[in-house]
Amino acid sequence: MEVIDKFRSHDGEQLIVKHYSSLNKCEMKFSLFLPPASKSGKVPIIWYLSGLTCSHANVTEKGEYRQKSSELGIAFICPDTSPRGDDIPDEKDNWQFGSGAGFYLDATQDPYNQNYNMFSYITDELPKLVFENFPVKEEIQGIMGHSMGGHGALITALNYPHKFKSCSAMAPISQPSTAGWSKTAFTKYLGEDTASWRKYDATSLIEDGHKFSNFLIDQGLDDPFLEEGLKPNLLKEICQKHNQEILLRMRKGYDHSYYFISTFMNDHINWHNNLFTE
Amino acid sequence: MEVIDKFRSHDGEQLIVKHYSSLNKCEMKFSLFLPPASKSGKVPIIWYLSGLTCSHANVTEKGEYRQKSSELGIAFICPDTSPRGDDIPDEKDNWQFGSGAGFYLDATQDPYNQNYNMFSYITDELPKLVFENFPVKEEIQGIMGHSMGGHGALITALNYPHKFKSCSAMAPISQPSTAGWSKTAFTKYLGEDTASWRKYDATSLIEDGHKFSNFLIDQGLDDPFLEEGLKPNLLKEICQKHNQEILLRMRKGYDHSYYFISTFMNDHINWHNNLFTE
Repeated sequence: MEVIDKFRSHDGEQLIVKHYSSLNKCEMKFSLFLPPASKSGKVPIIWYLSGLTCSHANVTEKGEYRQKSSELGIAFICPDTSPRGDDIPDEKDNWQFGSGAGFYLDATQDPYNQNYNMFSYITDELPKLVFENFPVKEEIQGIMGHSMGGHGALITALNYPHKFKSCSAMAPISQPSTAGWSKTAFTKYLGEDTASWRKYDATSLIEDGHKFSNFLIDQGLDDPFLEEGLKPNLLKEICQKHNQEILLRMRKGYDHSYYFISTFMNDHINWHNNLFTE
Repeated sequence: MEVIDKFRSHDGEQLIVKHYSSLNKCEMKFSLFLPPASKSGKVPIIWYLSGLTCSHANVTEKGEYRQKSSELGIAFICPDTSPRGDDIPDEKDNWQFGSGAGFYLDATQDPYNQNYNMFSYITDELPKLVFENFPVKEEIQGIMGHSMGGHGALITALNYPHKFKSCSAMAPISQPSTAGWSKTAFTKYLGEDTASWRKYDATSLIEDGHKFSNFLIDQGLDDPFLEEGLKPNLLKEICQKHNQEILLRMRKGYDHSYYFISTFMNDHINWHNNLFTE
């Protein structure tokens, strides 16, 4: 593990870290913001999972999370969205599959199963590295994300409800196993047998009895992916049917961009912090 | 003039605008954030001038100015740093001259005088366009900037002290006519006769009797350009000698990046707003 860049910001430290992932069999990067409170003791942590085409860098530069994280004394970690490198199987012209599109699942199909193990990377390998090396509290974690990463946050929380105090999402994909922009990726990563997909689909997990305390979701009404790709109302219906708490807020005029994300970032960090301190 | 992009952000609108500049003889872009208060009347405006290599886009994406501007009801405009285009004389391999390095002056030397007229662009052509087309108050303007643009803010305020209520800078160049990274550009844009440079050098302007109410300056102590390029203490000495008010704050651990800029953005917007409402 190597801290390859470090920037003072809002009295804390914005780190850029690289390490070799034995699960993904490649070098991975992530960013970690440590608030000033981390100098005198361990602090809670929020995991932020990014969307399609993004790396750790986009939200690190445009997400506007540091001021609030600094104020509340929360570490904020932004992993990459897939394995990367010349040796990693990829489809260069397809932004919905491969590099930048790991969908936070463990691939079972050859050759993708050699490198695309983002679910275990996010829930096991990376947490171990972080808790060993940085002053963060394993017992107070929240998880959030945007789009593909918003869905990643939902499935992580639904699979490990006791690991996380809180979960929120911005414009998450609701049902990747049926949405046009993710169904092909699921087939390539996981094969034709859709039973194996259910662990990585938030709506299937809820139908199968998984539960999390409460979800906060913000969704822009001018999001071009709203109707075809994201379908938050579908998620809301399934949540209501299965008594899964969900607060879905539809936001007039907002799109799918980092202008949307950065607008509601403070709200989300406050939501997590309220659940951290309950 | 054409609004080429529009994003809802913090209840306001982040616009990206292009227009033909007759002074710079090319198409120019700028960004303009309009806070929600602008829907019901004209609002004050802060001009933000960017540094070397930047366009309007860098601070628009990474500057973190929208939340505070929205809250206080202030428009925030980010012009480009130079004319741009295939027809514009440039030195592709030199980041300290030409494209991205207009130094907010009006060039007098051939061929640069045909396009590099950023001083008049910022103080005359662009304000006219903005005040004609957007709900902003000509009588309540502030100006700020970073590095080359921090210096741009200083010389603009010193040349037009009655146009601006407030001026601040982050890590500004203090004396471009002597600093290594700007002296060559001044020679190429303005010629060998350094008397003509004084209008575009903050320290010369102060020595020549120009005055502005008060400057706020933040400077990172880990800024790699501090000693050779920026020299804030030189500016402070000349200000003190000539009774020019200046508040210079040296910031431990901060560098020259947008992590530094975004950390102190709120402070600067508050500074301007306090002077707007005096």
